[in-house]
Amino acid sequence: MFSIFEIMKTNLNFSVTILGNSAAIPTKQSHLSSQLVKNNNDYFLVDCGEGTQMQLIRYKTKYHKIDNIFISHLHGDHFFGLIGLISTFHLQGREKPLSIFGPKELQEIIEFQLKIVQTDLKYKLIFHHIQPNKYDQIFENKSMIVYSFPLVHRIPTWGFRFEQKPQKLNIKKDFVNSFKPSIDEILCIKNGQDYITDDGSVIPNNEITIKPPKPLSYAYCSDTRYDESILDYISGVSLLFHEATFDNTMQDLAISKYHSTAKDAATIATKGKVSKLILGHFSARHKERSQLLEEATEVFRNTILSVEGMEYTIQP
Amino acid sequence: MFSIFEIMKTNLNFSVTILGNSAAIPTKQSHLSSQLVKNNNDYFLVDCGEGTQMQLIRYKTKYHKIDNIFISHLHGDHFFGLIGLISTFHLQGREKPLSIFGPKELQEIIEFQLKIVQTDLKYKLIFHHIQPNKYDQIFENKSMIVYSFPLVHRIPTWGFRFEQKPQKLNIKKDFVNSFKPSIDEILCIKNGQDYITDDGSVIPNNEITIKPPKPLSYAYCSDTRYDESILDYISGVSLLFHEATFDNTMQDLAISKYHSTAKDAATIATKGKVSKLILGHFSARHKERSQLLEEATEVFRNTILSVEGMEYTIQP
Repeated sequence: MFSIFEIMKTNLNFSVTILGNSAAIPTKQSHLSSQLVKNNNDYFLVDCGEGTQMQLIRYKTKYHKIDNIFISHLHGDHFFGLIGLISTFHLQGREKPLSIFGPKELQEIIEFQLKIVQTDLKYKLIFHHIQPNKYDQIFENKSMIVYSFPLVHRIPTWGFRFEQKPQKLNIKKDFVNSFKPSIDEILCIKNGQDYITDDGSVIPNNEITIKPPKPLSYAYCSDTRYDESILDYISGVSLLFHEATFDNTMQDLAISKYHSTAKDAATIATKGKVSKLILGHFSARHKERSQLLEEATEVFRNTILSVEGMEYTIQP
Repeated sequence: MFSIFEIMKTNLNFSVTILGNSAAIPTKQSHLSSQLVKNNNDYFLVDCGEGTQMQLIRYKTKYHKIDNIFISHLHGDHFFGLIGLISTFHLQGREKPLSIFGPKELQEIIEFQLKIVQTDLKYKLIFHHIQPNKYDQIFENKSMIVYSFPLVHRIPTWGFRFEQKPQKLNIKKDFVNSFKPSIDEILCIKNGQDYITDDGSVIPNNEITIKPPKPLSYAYCSDTRYDESILDYISGVSLLFHEATFDNTMQDLAISKYHSTAKDAATIATKGKVSKLILGHFSARHKERSQLLEEATEVFRNTILSVEGMEYTIQP
């Protein structure tokens, strides 16, 4: 009935920008853990190691759009940059609230520092305490749901799963051009209703709409030891970020330090049937990371190394 | 008696490396307050804004030599990087103690964070609480004395004055070559004693020694409003670092925010009869800093703008 080469799109641009991929200690090239997850105009920050605000500036992110920050655990390389970012927002006159998801002690640390430096924030800081030992929905807005889940590290640590919500139907552009439906009618069609023309004839919904793309998902796992208990939480995601602190020669160290090797990460990706794997949280020992990539791709082919400053689009 | 073109030198290499010169908020080019003061092999860190450890790495400083850190005040841009640096030293296996000079609340903040992140440091952290409202000697070793003094800011804030101790006499090399004095004899001569030759004749000390260069001094004043009460503390220093947050058009803002203009800094330098002035702590508004330099040099000619990564030798 209608050509489909032009459609009214409601596709969301879902991506992750790596701000820091170094484990524990920064190096000349690598910064501490942090990444910016974007779903169109929703900006989420995941972890906030020291220097995150500088990286956000360096890579020209519109970081004022960040309204939700997720902190995986209380090792300094994952959150020592948070107080600085909170202060900068304050100095820049932020007024809208900022939500922070993390263990309850994070709230104590931030509030204690704000008290001592006598800063009365101009905006509201809302802390959400993540519950231990469960898969939990911790955030929802009109287009995204975020879940937390337990990882296996020396201290309580959480992974995060970002799930796009199913999008509404797309309307074929030819139909819009021909029939000039009202805004109300467009909303009804996008919700699945048929269209009734001025002369009373019915055009079935499936003739004038295109199904939206399948919702995408992204999971963040850092820091964690190899543990198959996390498979349920990350299964089938479009993109999995998994820490790969060490190479295979350091398997014993990985176990004792509660970290993963590149091969561990790839094994989780394979067993979790994810679409794509991105490695990060590299030990400063591994200046040459091609070895890590090689070890991972032997197990899971669709693996890439994270590069700081790169924005990775999450694809079907 | 002896030619003087070659002498046994005991001159110390005294310098300051600027790690960050941005006020309050980092920018793409400028980092938060921190500088490395070196007196030969003694490394002192002055202030430690977020990202200081990255700057120390970036500029290839031998930052493990830092044994003493001085924090001017508890505004975040001057100390939020301290916990990260302390943690990195720990992760790198530091064993020697680290002294931190600052207000007593600084100890509370650091210890509270170390407790929450469950870090039991491998080395000893020694806090020295700076006393308010007085000029106070807070550090001394064989070649350097450091004083703290009150600045005029919104919260208790200290400046620091680094004073080289007078050095011992230099011995003329010709004398050493001719008479081959023992180590003990060299030490006696350097302390001013005459030399008695094998045949019993006396060579007066002033014939075989050269007076060492005059001790040098460096003062750090950031953050502060223009206030002549600090003149006594900084008078006659070889190099004065003074904050110059604003230009002259923002004089009122400088007063209300307890900061200085470039002209304020230059006026302090003039009245304090210092040898040289270096400006820093620039507001992010001043991307073009030549205006600040112009305004300062109109009042005090020997002024320079601090540049990050530059090491400035402190000279007579």
